[in-house]
Amino acid sequence: MSNKVAVLVAGSWGTALAAVLADNGKEVWLWSRNEEQVKEINDKHRNSRFLGETELSPQIKATSSLQEALFNAQAAVLVVPSSGMREVAAQIRPFLTKEMLLIHATKGFETGTLKRMSAVISDELPEIAAERIVVLSGPSHAEEVIRQCPTTVVVAAHDLDAAEAAQDLFINPYFRVYTNPDIAGVEIGGSLKNIIALGAGLTDGLGFGDNAKAALLTRGLAEIARLGQAMGANAQTFAGLAGLGDLIVTCTSKHSRNWRAGYMLAQGEPLEQVLKEMGMVVEGVKTTKAAYELSRFFKVSMPITDELYSVLFEGKSPKIAVEDLMGRLRKHEMEEI
Amino acid sequence: MSNKVAVLVAGSWGTALAAVLADNGKEVWLWSRNEEQVKEINDKHRNSRFLGETELSPQIKATSSLQEALFNAQAAVLVVPSSGMREVAAQIRPFLTKEMLLIHATKGFETGTLKRMSAVISDELPEIAAERIVVLSGPSHAEEVIRQCPTTVVVAAHDLDAAEAAQDLFINPYFRVYTNPDIAGVEIGGSLKNIIALGAGLTDGLGFGDNAKAALLTRGLAEIARLGQAMGANAQTFAGLAGLGDLIVTCTSKHSRNWRAGYMLAQGEPLEQVLKEMGMVVEGVKTTKAAYELSRFFKVSMPITDELYSVLFEGKSPKIAVEDLMGRLRKHEMEEI
Repeated sequence: MSNKVAVLVAGSWGTALAAVLADNGKEVWLWSRNEEQVKEINDKHRNSRFLGETELSPQIKATSSLQEALFNAQAAVLVVPSSGMREVAAQIRPFLTKEMLLIHATKGFETGTLKRMSAVISDELPEIAAERIVVLSGPSHAEEVIRQCPTTVVVAAHDLDAAEAAQDLFINPYFRVYTNPDIAGVEIGGSLKNIIALGAGLTDGLGFGDNAKAALLTRGLAEIARLGQAMGANAQTFAGLAGLGDLIVTCTSKHSRNWRAGYMLAQGEPLEQVLKEMGMVVEGVKTTKAAYELSRFFKVSMPITDELYSVLFEGKSPKIAVEDLMGRLRKHEMEEI
Repeated sequence: MSNKVAVLVAGSWGTALAAVLADNGKEVWLWSRNEEQVKEINDKHRNSRFLGETELSPQIKATSSLQEALFNAQAAVLVVPSSGMREVAAQIRPFLTKEMLLIHATKGFETGTLKRMSAVISDELPEIAAERIVVLSGPSHAEEVIRQCPTTVVVAAHDLDAAEAAQDLFINPYFRVYTNPDIAGVEIGGSLKNIIALGAGLTDGLGFGDNAKAALLTRGLAEIARLGQAMGANAQTFAGLAGLGDLIVTCTSKHSRNWRAGYMLAQGEPLEQVLKEMGMVVEGVKTTKAAYELSRFFKVSMPITDELYSVLFEGKSPKIAVEDLMGRLRKHEMEEI
């Protein structure tokens, strides 16, 4: 088996995963369409747009050729925005082999079809056994992984052998990798937490405090788990690293772009301007729409998602939305998780 | 029924709960042994030791007489350190009536007996029906409640009427109160989260980052729920406001004295000096010992509690403890919640 791994594309999380693989002695090929970025990674060992002055291992090579990235690789790691997953999956098809391990680390659902990323990949790559497609997720800011801060993640696939092969690729003393057979739960948890992160940014931006934010996260995880179970996931997954763990890290850290987008919305900036200023993909915006549609299809109550949908797409005032979430004054309510 | 409520004692959380009751139009009597504090609250409407310059409602009266505080009160709210609960409960016995509602908002177990606070109260007040004793808990920094920041809490009692009476007392537009019949779960969740807060302070103090802290909280809630279930609590309670919610607010905010104690320990300060510098009760230290003993009695695995016990009481280095928690390099581990 070759020692080569391809990582697509060279965003912050893709580059951080490439750094882990390089630390594990892999020959890493990072693919990007952007020739300038390719040149910077190869010549200066930096990816300044996403990771500032951080120095990358010279074992990470960049290329704009899919063929060069994928030829003879033992694994392909797909870390593309959810909106680009179908296109990239189709593009890599000519360069795959049956033995190649396919791992993705993308959050979100496909707009329109509402499919999970593993299903989108499977659609485009019928030669690869669907149960061997692996997702990697968990509480893991790229900026900390690059600095080798202790981090734990989950890899999930129906096929345990595939999950364990992904675990073997990534595990090292600072990057702990656990397996989980519930790929649906891991993908859904990682995607839906971005909605709650947007909401946490809103409440923080409105100055509502830590008490309100803790209540939002608690109720948020409960509604994520409700939808997940209706979609066939295991409830336990949402109490784990890819559910609760990822929710906490995304909602309590200013690294999170979804949190920042919510914070800016709370300052009264319109959605379009926020997205323009961020200059990066804010998965939580599209995920709110997807979850809103999924909750109706599966007939699951998701009050936080509903309020965020109203703020993002129907012009509702963030302040009134959060107040509505806190509830009108109704007495004798039981806590229902 | 009288409009009077007694709150014992005038710490930060007791005073914040007194402020909620005053906002709800109650005649609030706050009891303190400290004559200077009584005088300051009555004359200047301030409790500067605990709440700085915050101005309190003139509807809050302070007294050092238990009789004056409790005479003809419809409810007594006990907010004393866990180590003082038995003594205070015994002292109030002469002034109770059968109709008086007993609510406590104290975290922790009694040292030695390892009893929950409601059981300690029940021991000392046999005239009060045990199932009518109420606990109030949830994600609620006193500093935010005093500023009327939106806050949600849970009141729990075996007897739903008692829980609803407590809900009626406290509920208002900024202070949302839910009921829960699982008093064991609410008391255990609120107590054990202080252990994880100490641990979060340790990892933050060691500079391990947000990824490691999110993993600690996730694993921490799992071990809290394991012990709680063994002690007869409902697993769902730990996913709610008194479990997850309180855990998040305590571990992610610098208001928390348990977090601060952990942070100081990580700087290499010995435990005795930390406790002396804090000048306030750090419930998490005693709770770690109690949980360590309970985990052995109930034969429940609690790796985070075990490591913190070693740091607090056996001189283990915080850095090695956290590294041990991250796990030696074992491959092919499943995520088990």
